Amino acid sequence: MRLGILGGGQLAWMLAQAAEPLGVSVAVLDPSPDAAAGRIAEHVAAAYDDLAGLDAVSAGADVVTYEFENIPAAAVARLAALGVTVLPLPASLTTTQDRAREKELMRGLGIHVAPYALIDAPADAAAALTQVGAPGILKTRRLGYDGKGQVRVATAADLPAAIRELGGTDLIYEGLVAFTRELSVVVARGTDGSLVAYPPVENEHRDGILSCTVAPAPALPPAQAEAAQAIGFAVAEALGHIGVLCVELFDTPDGIVANEIAPRVHNSGHWSIEGAVTSQFANHVRGVLGLPLGDPSARGVAAMVNIVGTEPELAALLAISGASVHTYGKAPRPGRKLGHVTLVAESSAALAAPLAQARALCAAAWDA
Amino acid sequence: MRLGILGGGQLAWMLAQAAEPLGVSVAVLDPSPDAAAGRIAEHVAAAYDDLAGLDAVSAGADVVTYEFENIPAAAVARLAALGVTVLPLPASLTTTQDRAREKELMRGLGIHVAPYALIDAPADAAAALTQVGAPGILKTRRLGYDGKGQVRVATAADLPAAIRELGGTDLIYEGLVAFTRELSVVVARGTDGSLVAYPPVENEHRDGILSCTVAPAPALPPAQAEAAQAIGFAVAEALGHIGVLCVELFDTPDGIVANEIAPRVHNSGHWSIEGAVTSQFANHVRGVLGLPLGDPSARGVAAMVNIVGTEPELAALLAISGASVHTYGKAPRPGRKLGHVTLVAESSAALAAPLAQARALCAAAWDA
Repeated sequence: MRLGILGGGQLAWMLAQAAEPLGVSVAVLDPSPDAAAGRIAEHVAAAYDDLAGLDAVSAGADVVTYEFENIPAAAVARLAALGVTVLPLPASLTTTQDRAREKELMRGLGIHVAPYALIDAPADAAAALTQVGAPGILKTRRLGYDGKGQVRVATAADLPAAIRELGGTDLIYEGLVAFTRELSVVVARGTDGSLVAYPPVENEHRDGILSCTVAPAPALPPAQAEAAQAIGFAVAEALGHIGVLCVELFDTPDGIVANEIAPRVHNSGHWSIEGAVTSQFANHVRGVLGLPLGDPSARGVAAMVNIVGTEPELAALLAISGASVHTYGKAPRPGRKLGHVTLVAESSAALAAPLAQARALCAAAWDA
Repeated sequence: MRLGILGGGQLAWMLAQAAEPLGVSVAVLDPSPDAAAGRIAEHVAAAYDDLAGLDAVSAGADVVTYEFENIPAAAVARLAALGVTVLPLPASLTTTQDRAREKELMRGLGIHVAPYALIDAPADAAAALTQVGAPGILKTRRLGYDGKGQVRVATAADLPAAIRELGGTDLIYEGLVAFTRELSVVVARGTDGSLVAYPPVENEHRDGILSCTVAPAPALPPAQAEAAQAIGFAVAEALGHIGVLCVELFDTPDGIVANEIAPRVHNSGHWSIEGAVTSQFANHVRGVLGLPLGDPSARGVAAMVNIVGTEPELAALLAISGASVHTYGKAPRPGRKLGHVTLVAESSAALAAPLAQARALCAAAWDA
């Protein structure tokens, strides 16, 4: 079998790592000559809307998938014209590329989301404040990630300036959610409609970037865990999604509130390579290729700490008990995800010390 | 960092899979254009004693290692002349390339081995029979693997013919060991002398080829497990070994008897990719590169079933609970190892059904 991937970054790299042992050959399309996945897969170095590049990455592929949701419409159209199967299907992309459609979908499914209002012109500010109040967060409807394209609005008076800062139109203004912690849930759906859910995890962010995931989320009552998984299932079914998706969630005193959907493998699922019976990457590959999904159960407990900015010394990370290191091979740059370290242990108590060590090393490297 | 590997088969492929996430680039030397490791590593397609090939595979490498023990002496000499660090060191190779030296080493360490006699001419048969008796097994001292280069000797009268069959010289005649089962132990030793041991495992062979490994070996008393690990440690220290080695063992009513040493990652350690905190491949890479060794502990229980001859349908294997499939990408051929499937579970009871399913599928494919 053969799999094409739009994007050749670390997500595609880990997808290729999961595909290759199954005898699935992989080609990635990525304009960067240093794309991580290019080290282990065929690399088509071209822009995402380059027609020859799209032809090359999909040549002989059973399926083409993607590692990021902002796929140019021209790319999707070209692959459709070639008769190539692209999974997840377009509905997963078109809905999740737009925060407003994403929120509408979830609200329609009875999933709790933050109050929000759409802003298409500076004049919409007043109505939005009436509906949502302040403080809040103003976001672009499209193309935001890792905290980019977002502005905190502390008081009602700050909203107009924020609207101007983000371009004046195609914005969404969201009420703040009083959450006790951030969670996420990863689910996979097969071509036959089969569904599996990973245990919900707890996430910590820093500077808008995921810094740490603990899996399963500590002390999450089973009913809450099931509610989170039910949100993932409902979204996947409503989208007719094939493969892996992630829903970012808030844990609140009033229950779980959904934040946003990523229609792909997600940084908060990286722990699953070592921490689950079947990783999110293996299940995405299985799902889009029509193969049976694997068991998403956690094996003991795990944590993932992102390596951001600069990399700690490899030997120091490997000296930590239960540590596995994943280096993406990217040049250091402030705020750039360069890798991650996963820690596994039999119990939360046994995980605490290794996790503290990894966090300390990675925090120091982040600041360096 | 950069690692060169002599050999590009499935062992080198899995070493490269373990090295690459650490940011270690890998080059392999293998004459076969289809060498498995070539799919994810730089592939130098040349004979093992090809000087230009040896130069290329070692260019820029911090260390050169190997996936098989029958490295030509010319290759070792060339790398030494180039000033390349080859690990494990030559002592590991020279001792284990010769069954007689291997046995002498272990006997000298107080490790129980089968009675044996060396045969360098047909005239040695009588003395060998006096010493060892019959039945027994006659083996070539060098270049045997997977049951090749071995002849069973049922009665004393059969020995002379067996000696002629195996070339008349450089042979070793071993007494049969009345074992209840076959075990093996994998250990890793770092450049600083640090040692870790995997839990001993139980192995089943068919047609002289490993068919199934269960890890940890079921119902092995802790004292026996420690004795097996102590054998691995003693051998590794006596050889000054760096990296992973495996000792094949017999479990007998009188205790553990050592059979042979493989100075490399071993088929009976493949379970460790999913079944241990740190795999044998990761620990070999760490060991030879001077990085800290990782925890070899088992996570729950695991089993490995070899795919030999032909491959079962991928979807059927992936439908088995807890299964991970590793396909080496080799053409089918009777008796050829084409891949393996690993099964993980929380308990032996939970492992039983998936293991039975995998064995049935792989046995049918072996016979096909």
